Amino acid sequence: MEPRISMVTLGVDDLSRARAFYEALGWVVAPQSQESVVFLQGGNIVLGLYGRQALAEDAGIENTPPGFSGFALAINVASETEADRLFDTAVSNGAMARKPPQKAFWGGYSGYFADPDGHLWEVAHNPYFAMDADGNLKLVDEPA
Amino acid sequence: MEPRISMVTLGVDDLSRARAFYEALGWVVAPQSQESVVFLQGGNIVLGLYGRQALAEDAGIENTPPGFSGFALAINVASETEADRLFDTAVSNGAMARKPPQKAFWGGYSGYFADPDGHLWEVAHNPYFAMDADGNLKLVDEPA
Repeated sequence: MEPRISMVTLGVDDLSRARAFYEALGWVVAPQSQESVVFLQGGNIVLGLYGRQALAEDAGIENTPPGFSGFALAINVASETEADRLFDTAVSNGAMARKPPQKAFWGGYSGYFADPDGHLWEVAHNPYFAMDADGNLKLVDEPA
Repeated sequence: MEPRISMVTLGVDDLSRARAFYEALGWVVAPQSQESVVFLQGGNIVLGLYGRQALAEDAGIENTPPGFSGFALAINVASETEADRLFDTAVSNGAMARKPPQKAFWGGYSGYFADPDGHLWEVAHNPYFAMDADGNLKLVDEPA
């Protein structure tokens, strides 16, 4: 089994609001989307939007109130300028600024915003991480 | 800005335990890993493991106790048999079975496990979703 992530599904409280937010950031709504679920194609992955309650039910777990969710999605970009621009685009489309992009202790440049449902996104420029021609991070040349 | 997810970072309570779990599932530890952070290369994405408290601090938010985290990562595979096998491998390496793979109302086959820190993974076979030669989901031929 090749290790991969095929899709990240975010539980949301307002599907229309979430869809509009991600469309504003450039994600393309796939025709497989339905009334209760939205699939968005990124370059390398699918982002799913689904009702938070429905997601909890689908996984068979209780929809308890969220504390810190304990995860972050990241978009790595090629420059500090691009990180600033992406961060500003997100915030101007309804994201909450958590940490404006700034020099990071690890030698790169990083900021965080939360999407309209509170899901954390890091926007990062990491000069030590290689990208392939498609812009995907390639830390290992040929993964098993 | 091309929409993408470059990396998913999971906040974990025990970095060694988390690293061993994902290595057992086939992820390859990248040499850029450090004492406090582990980077794992999958085919299309990087999975980061980082202390939960450190992740909260990095994003500038409070490390409140988790309720339902409101997200799920998914691995899509080519067959029901492969879904069963992956699910069993995860559980035999310390994952908690949340929902054994089974026929899903949407016409596919799906199960859920939680990794040792409670992060949800769906294992799915979806006969309606196209995959490219590398096994990535391609719902839209040429995303913007």
